[in-house]
Amino acid sequence: MSKKNAFYAQSGGVTAVINASACGVIETVRANRRRMGKLYAGRNGIIGALREELIDTSRESTAAIGSLRHTPSGAFGSCRYKLKGIEEHRAEYERLIEVFKAHNIGYFFYNGGGDSADTCLKVSQLSATMGYPVQAIHIPKTVDNDLPLTDNCPGFGSVAKYIAISTREAALDVASMCETSTKVFILEVMGRHAGWIAAAGGLAADAEGDAPHIILFPEIAFNKDKFMKRVQRSVKRYGHCVIVAPEGARYADGRFLADAGTRDAFGHAQLGGVAPTLAEMIKSELGYKYHWAVADYLQRAARHIASATDVEQAYAVGKAAVEMALAGKNSVMASIVRGNGKKYSWKIGEAPLDKVANVEKMMPRNFITRDGFGITQACRDYLTPLIAGEDYPPYKNGMPQYARLKNELVARKLKKRFKV
Amino acid sequence: MSKKNAFYAQSGGVTAVINASACGVIETVRANRRRMGKLYAGRNGIIGALREELIDTSRESTAAIGSLRHTPSGAFGSCRYKLKGIEEHRAEYERLIEVFKAHNIGYFFYNGGGDSADTCLKVSQLSATMGYPVQAIHIPKTVDNDLPLTDNCPGFGSVAKYIAISTREAALDVASMCETSTKVFILEVMGRHAGWIAAAGGLAADAEGDAPHIILFPEIAFNKDKFMKRVQRSVKRYGHCVIVAPEGARYADGRFLADAGTRDAFGHAQLGGVAPTLAEMIKSELGYKYHWAVADYLQRAARHIASATDVEQAYAVGKAAVEMALAGKNSVMASIVRGNGKKYSWKIGEAPLDKVANVEKMMPRNFITRDGFGITQACRDYLTPLIAGEDYPPYKNGMPQYARLKNELVARKLKKRFKV
Repeated sequence: MSKKNAFYAQSGGVTAVINASACGVIETVRANRRRMGKLYAGRNGIIGALREELIDTSRESTAAIGSLRHTPSGAFGSCRYKLKGIEEHRAEYERLIEVFKAHNIGYFFYNGGGDSADTCLKVSQLSATMGYPVQAIHIPKTVDNDLPLTDNCPGFGSVAKYIAISTREAALDVASMCETSTKVFILEVMGRHAGWIAAAGGLAADAEGDAPHIILFPEIAFNKDKFMKRVQRSVKRYGHCVIVAPEGARYADGRFLADAGTRDAFGHAQLGGVAPTLAEMIKSELGYKYHWAVADYLQRAARHIASATDVEQAYAVGKAAVEMALAGKNSVMASIVRGNGKKYSWKIGEAPLDKVANVEKMMPRNFITRDGFGITQACRDYLTPLIAGEDYPPYKNGMPQYARLKNELVARKLKKRFKV
Repeated sequence: MSKKNAFYAQSGGVTAVINASACGVIETVRANRRRMGKLYAGRNGIIGALREELIDTSRESTAAIGSLRHTPSGAFGSCRYKLKGIEEHRAEYERLIEVFKAHNIGYFFYNGGGDSADTCLKVSQLSATMGYPVQAIHIPKTVDNDLPLTDNCPGFGSVAKYIAISTREAALDVASMCETSTKVFILEVMGRHAGWIAAAGGLAADAEGDAPHIILFPEIAFNKDKFMKRVQRSVKRYGHCVIVAPEGARYADGRFLADAGTRDAFGHAQLGGVAPTLAEMIKSELGYKYHWAVADYLQRAARHIASATDVEQAYAVGKAAVEMALAGKNSVMASIVRGNGKKYSWKIGEAPLDKVANVEKMMPRNFITRDGFGITQACRDYLTPLIAGEDYPPYKNGMPQYARLKNELVARKLKKRFKV
């Protein structure tokens, strides 16, 4: 039996360390070239498979692949594209099988979050459902940290570190200015459903009174009165108030704060996010001068201050996925398992994909303080090791040097095009 | 003659390296204790002098003062408070002299931007105007980089580095996502009048086609048609478009873009800044999916990725200010003078304060490309050395360790209080 080639794709929102997982996959495939063939990366994720746009990673130098470890975002392109169910859209799966067959692909590595786990699960069932033998292994990735059956998700630790540091730094700024100027600072962070990233802002505080003075969570209904009282108390007590707010902050009835129902002169929905909404609210109720920031992509792309732990784990799940494939596994996710000791330790585990797909892991209630505005010691204990260590990229002329791949496509073998 | 004490204050918006200047001042005063007395820092800037709230920096340990070099923002507090003219508000100057006399202060070090240079100039004239002998030396600081008679301003290099890196990182993110999702990314940066910070975004690009594809400048009137065409061209050519926009971007008639005249349901002015305004404009004209970020305080507080050159220069101007005072100078600013050689070099110079105060240095037109959307090679040559080198703070448990001073006030000597 000739050795099979492998397919790898990046899916969904990218992170500072998803390329470290790619690096782990590719270096491990290369280290096992006697047992595994070439590693083809999908150009722009799964779409690359459907379109037969396969990047031949074997044409990249050892150095180029090595530099993926310190390069943020998706070097092969990602996509937001969810495969429908096999019953609904059989043509897509038939196309995948066609492409896999044409390129002798027997391994499928999918690097993504919850939606992607579902896609990976469906591919893992192709053998049973459509008679094409393929082993599908999921490689976890999401800044949202909301995948189940893994202690944490690669990508999250680096965002957490960025948000914790940014909160600490901006808070020092506000503290310097508050006597005559800005009294309230709001940092808007990612997190539509789960508050993990917002929680990480809490790591900025070392002692009583330290910023952030208020954290909002999507899991806790926003209560305007309680919030205003807390802002006022913080300004009175400390001279200023620093707030970390997730994009998914919402009222008890489920309405997002950012969706304030406001309209501009032309009737367009308002532009702002949570931070400007809260700022305006505070200004009109309490009159405090404010500043706000929206970190947006900056937070998940900030490889310059990535967590060393995160980078290591991202690489490790990529490596483990290839090893699982070589061990004959299918329909599993490489997971991170935390040790029980007082000192933080972790190892790679294995989670069944059908238990991972379409499940979101929210913040446990005991990670949030009773008043709903902060994190508990249990949460700090959970988060702290995930941001540990700095893993700086190399610099030239003051700028980080990130990978530039050739990304050469394999020659097409199929005549038929597939429209995505 | 008994040796005189010195007063130091931080003024205006703080930066990632203003404390490095404070460190330079304090360490140099300490090294010259036979000739100069104590260094009192104003609590919250000049207000601290008026209120007789003087921080006795001699009570801080050598290590604590040393750690100021890697601590962002104003460790003694800053203020936005402009002294009026002596004719207008003689009481303020009389109070300053009272406080200076009471604490035997003969040296005045003021660490700030353009407005602060004006305050420092007025204090430098107290000897002539009000008969109180004091030497006033200005220590330049501003992220806006708009002070004249200095090649650049401490604080700017670190913001420039942060914006260049953030642009490069976020651009990789957009490039990964653009096939099926976000096509336009807008980063809003500081700069109300001068485009220096926006220009720094241009350092993200190494080659043709690299982001940012569009930079806006306050110095160049915004032309919506030209802008939209450029956005569209970039998306067609590269699949995406990255834009760096300063808060001060404006129309030919002087109106700021951010002041779109839009109102919410309650008649409040719209919340957004330049980035959301541009995003909404692009969405409604071209239909592209967008993301935007507003860096706000994050950019000027980002000590974690400060420019080593900037830190060194910030320290040097602080040190030089004390040396100038000891050499009997008055009414001068410590400046940075660039060498003429091909290889970047700099040394400390001296600029007359009356030529510095109230003058803003804009981007020269030849630093902006003819089309008004980018930076020229001359601009790159100017900016590149300013972001050179990384000067990482120490970390513990994944977090940067910033100075915590005792900030103990000197016992008051005056009975009279002064209301500020």
